[in-house]
Amino acid sequence: MSSPRKKRVVVALGGNAAYPPTIAGTAEEQLQLMRGVCQHFVEIIRAGWQLVLTHGNGPVVGNILYRMARTAAELPPMPMDVCVAHSQGGMGYMLQQSLANVLHDHGMSVVVSCVITEVEVDPKDPAFQNPTKPVGKFFTEEDALEMARRTGWTFAPDSGRGWRRMVASPKPQKILDLHTIDALLDAGVLPIACGGGGVPVVVRDNGHLQGVPAVIDKDLTGAMLASHLHADAYIMLTGVERVALDFNTPNQRWLDEITVDEARRYAAQGQFPAGSMGPKIEAAVTFLEGAPEVSGEGLVIITSLEKTFEALMGRAGTRITAQSRT
Amino acid sequence: MSSPRKKRVVVALGGNAAYPPTIAGTAEEQLQLMRGVCQHFVEIIRAGWQLVLTHGNGPVVGNILYRMARTAAELPPMPMDVCVAHSQGGMGYMLQQSLANVLHDHGMSVVVSCVITEVEVDPKDPAFQNPTKPVGKFFTEEDALEMARRTGWTFAPDSGRGWRRMVASPKPQKILDLHTIDALLDAGVLPIACGGGGVPVVVRDNGHLQGVPAVIDKDLTGAMLASHLHADAYIMLTGVERVALDFNTPNQRWLDEITVDEARRYAAQGQFPAGSMGPKIEAAVTFLEGAPEVSGEGLVIITSLEKTFEALMGRAGTRITAQSRT
Repeated sequence: MSSPRKKRVVVALGGNAAYPPTIAGTAEEQLQLMRGVCQHFVEIIRAGWQLVLTHGNGPVVGNILYRMARTAAELPPMPMDVCVAHSQGGMGYMLQQSLANVLHDHGMSVVVSCVITEVEVDPKDPAFQNPTKPVGKFFTEEDALEMARRTGWTFAPDSGRGWRRMVASPKPQKILDLHTIDALLDAGVLPIACGGGGVPVVVRDNGHLQGVPAVIDKDLTGAMLASHLHADAYIMLTGVERVALDFNTPNQRWLDEITVDEARRYAAQGQFPAGSMGPKIEAAVTFLEGAPEVSGEGLVIITSLEKTFEALMGRAGTRITAQSRT
Repeated sequence: MSSPRKKRVVVALGGNAAYPPTIAGTAEEQLQLMRGVCQHFVEIIRAGWQLVLTHGNGPVVGNILYRMARTAAELPPMPMDVCVAHSQGGMGYMLQQSLANVLHDHGMSVVVSCVITEVEVDPKDPAFQNPTKPVGKFFTEEDALEMARRTGWTFAPDSGRGWRRMVASPKPQKILDLHTIDALLDAGVLPIACGGGGVPVVVRDNGHLQGVPAVIDKDLTGAMLASHLHADAYIMLTGVERVALDFNTPNQRWLDEITVDEARRYAAQGQFPAGSMGPKIEAAVTFLEGAPEVSGEGLVIITSLEKTFEALMGRAGTRITAQSRT
């Protein structure tokens, strides 16, 4: 290659970023929030980084599933994999439009495109034995049992607030559209990919792909994406600026920079709960250690949306590295 | 370029091909039909053509709109543009999986990926003055008026069978994700793009893209796609093997090959009704004449799914060319 390769960063955006519980959920509200979100990516692009966006889809796919369930007596409800694909299409479209508009305001012109992404999972993943990941809205017990009868879906009580659909959350094994995403980067396109962690599929004995009712953790899929794209940095956005030890206790300490060994040690101490920082730390370890092609120079950042660029510049957030830099 | 460019063909598939009125509409039914559809593309790929797929979305987006409307009291309904994006995601996913599975059965390995595609329309398009394109399911007058009140959508009586939502059907002006589709072809990826004619957007005075409630004719968008990709052939699939003159009369004559001038003349005679063959002939003329970069060697084929490959080989279908070949 004659010209130096541009630095590459994969950013994983939470599904709540453009759909917090505080909004009614209209498209206008979501688009307004997305424009605000995208402002925080302008400096990254201006600084010459190749950006790849991935995003969660919790509230959106929850609504899609709710509409499927509520109209199941009139129309066959689409299965989970198709619903995830719907959410990739809808959110991808709104994000690509929002980002293009924001860049236009800054006099920048970048082609942003959304790729529908299938992600292979292992049908023997133990998660399938025990679907415990709640998705979508809360229902009354009566409604839940009626829908379970009609659809074959699994419902269970959740957090004392009602019944929710439960699906498996298997680990991502392979991003099937990786070649496509890579080609887009080569062509200077800013890809939005692996939305909602990817459309979950398994490979059957006959070699065919088949969708499965599951949700894949978007931070884990993002880590795999960053790893296979040889990203220089993988940023997971969350509600806090930094990761803390002894979070919400009198001993709380914010972490600025830790090694993957320290991250693993803190995780083993139970510092990072499964429902919040745990999966992000697991994803960080996956990116920094998992894939043989990562050089050990990779950098993981966990921070808030507002600090995205500052953190990439080393001035904010929690930075996790393969080896200590000192 | 050192190696000769592969021949390129854009195929526009009808929205009913994998969702005819005869099915209940489950995902299993659609996937089974899609596998059947994709069998007809194997020989094209084996013969060394670069294939680009586009598709209608009528029944699918109709269902999506219906679910939005039926749950509008509980959840904000997404506007038409977002619904089209949902349908691109869902149908694109199912098509890419089906085609990959069929190719696998034939020992072929091609990366198939779906690109969410925005298509610009002109806000001054006269179609916006008079939204007459029915979309989605039939409602009772009472339900329609109630939903119109709640959503601001336009409903009107349609074909004596009830009330339907009416939207504008403006002409496509620009495919915004063309660079992406082109890049995928360069990388050997088989793109699925412009589903449902594309997500309809306008460019506002401030330069921002904004979705609009409209549907774009997928054959017209496909013609623009084929033209800009410098496709050697553009195939529109329909329910009959060939175009006829005096269709369904005692004088009916099937057409094997005509020039674009003949097509225009027959159209002026009223041979091709607006609701059926008319838009396809208009799309053919668009492809053969509209874009300056088309060399005049382009070929348009109108035929049935079953005859796709035979027609491309010159042994079936109606072939429309820029100039007479004799």
